Amino acid sequence: MILTVTLNTALDITYRVRALRPHASHRVSEVTERPGGKGLNVARVLAALGHEVTVTGFAGGATGREVRRRLAAAPGIVDALLPVSGATRRTIAVVDEHTGDTTQLNEPGPAVTPAEWHAFQEAYGELLAGARAVALCGSLPPGVPVGAYAGLIRTARAAGVPVLLDTGGEPLRRGVAARPDLIKPNAEELAELTGSHEPLRAAQDARRRGARSVVASLGPGGLLATTPEGRWRATPPARVRGNPTGAGDSVVAGLLSGLVERLSWPDRLARATALSAATVLAPAAGEFDRAAYGELLGRVAVTAEASAA
Amino acid sequence: MILTVTLNTALDITYRVRALRPHASHRVSEVTERPGGKGLNVARVLAALGHEVTVTGFAGGATGREVRRRLAAAPGIVDALLPVSGATRRTIAVVDEHTGDTTQLNEPGPAVTPAEWHAFQEAYGELLAGARAVALCGSLPPGVPVGAYAGLIRTARAAGVPVLLDTGGEPLRRGVAARPDLIKPNAEELAELTGSHEPLRAAQDARRRGARSVVASLGPGGLLATTPEGRWRATPPARVRGNPTGAGDSVVAGLLSGLVERLSWPDRLARATALSAATVLAPAAGEFDRAAYGELLGRVAVTAEASAA
Repeated sequence: MILTVTLNTALDITYRVRALRPHASHRVSEVTERPGGKGLNVARVLAALGHEVTVTGFAGGATGREVRRRLAAAPGIVDALLPVSGATRRTIAVVDEHTGDTTQLNEPGPAVTPAEWHAFQEAYGELLAGARAVALCGSLPPGVPVGAYAGLIRTARAAGVPVLLDTGGEPLRRGVAARPDLIKPNAEELAELTGSHEPLRAAQDARRRGARSVVASLGPGGLLATTPEGRWRATPPARVRGNPTGAGDSVVAGLLSGLVERLSWPDRLARATALSAATVLAPAAGEFDRAAYGELLGRVAVTAEASAA
Repeated sequence: MILTVTLNTALDITYRVRALRPHASHRVSEVTERPGGKGLNVARVLAALGHEVTVTGFAGGATGREVRRRLAAAPGIVDALLPVSGATRRTIAVVDEHTGDTTQLNEPGPAVTPAEWHAFQEAYGELLAGARAVALCGSLPPGVPVGAYAGLIRTARAAGVPVLLDTGGEPLRRGVAARPDLIKPNAEELAELTGSHEPLRAAQDARRRGARSVVASLGPGGLLATTPEGRWRATPPARVRGNPTGAGDSVVAGLLSGLVERLSWPDRLARATALSAATVLAPAAGEFDRAAYGELLGRVAVTAEASAA
């Protein structure tokens, strides 16, 4: 199985309102809910691709129970979340029907105690024994040390399990130093890590800092991969319009499934790019359009890239 | 006991954010939750005044379970809510720390089935047997007929239980025609009901439409009571500054407790006005400041009002 870690799981709630005006009262016309947090989104896409997936991290309170209830109904995903005394956060996406724009409100997440964090590390070590790859995804809830991902990467490496890190800021900086197999920063996260706004140069710098491979997601510009086996750029056949929520998580699922299936880098990148574009095209945030995925897969351009130096 | 009916209960959630900007992403710095819906707020104030209170209405889903869990921890309130297959709504108040203003997002509430509505009417009839007064409060969830309050008023009148109605729009219009003992519209609800923006004239019209007594809440202008026993205006000693959320529910609690304690109209109005002002002054939305209430109670001015005609 593939293991995904979501320390800060979420109940993702989407509201539709006619027009969002600060300081006014709004009737929400439509409410949708689903389990969220990057690692759970990655797991959903992996399961849709036919992989066995186990999710771990924390879940607590009424929101955590709702996340687990909905996960139980999702086919192909094994729930190995650990209980936490605090409540799983909500994220609220308010979609303005007039403009189509989204306003996001994110709760911080539960305060994790040292005992809960210790229990997680033990459970994680045991889950790794059955894992072919692991993805560490998203923000850290309050109470989890900023070097958490670095420790989880070392444990995975010691167990011989390939590890992908998808986070930002200081947790990314510390994590990279622990030598993950792959990181998937967006342009902003990569610039924050390296100080360089030139993606190829920044990706090479990230590799020098410890990441074995770097796949930078450049939004409509596609993916830029910098690896020991070579450098590639993957671009979708045309600019796609839609909701980019979850597109990055689909890239992670594409890369991770390609890794365990031992695909070549160009094939992994084509899959990740097609999944990402098919996610933008899907009407529901974070879902992907299967027909569009199949159609796009053969039309992604993957080209070798020259060195930046 | 006093019975309060909240057909559309809520989990009231308050978020603090630094500054709310449409189409941006916000980290919520503080999250608070409490059981909500007008009848539940009224019950909390009645319990704080020392009355035995039973709450009924509907609760369902993860949000409904959370409402009931929190009600169980509230002293002096008996939970007689009925299960419903849909989920109890959330209301989200987003407080902008920069301006102090609040933006409100209200979910519509669960779709109530005919069988659930029938079960409620039966349970309500049984609860009335032990009630000294009943308050029917707030909006109707989807599926409950617009004439719902009219039917509940007739049942209460047949049981000889005094009934207060606090709602707006068409449910208020239909409810008034069923001859409730008391309605408590705000200026806007009263104008919508009668077409008149002159409160005393509108209140007299509302009485002609069927309400035995009308107490109009005029915000900082205090209360205007039009009853078979006379007309009064009650005004707080000074304009109070703070959060008006729940002030109207405190008025209902003041009037209802005064009714079952057989206070005179001027004493009921003084209590309701002082409670309302003490609610505006309390730091937490919907709570009231006990010290301020005691201090304000003796300083509310209640004066007899001449007829509008």
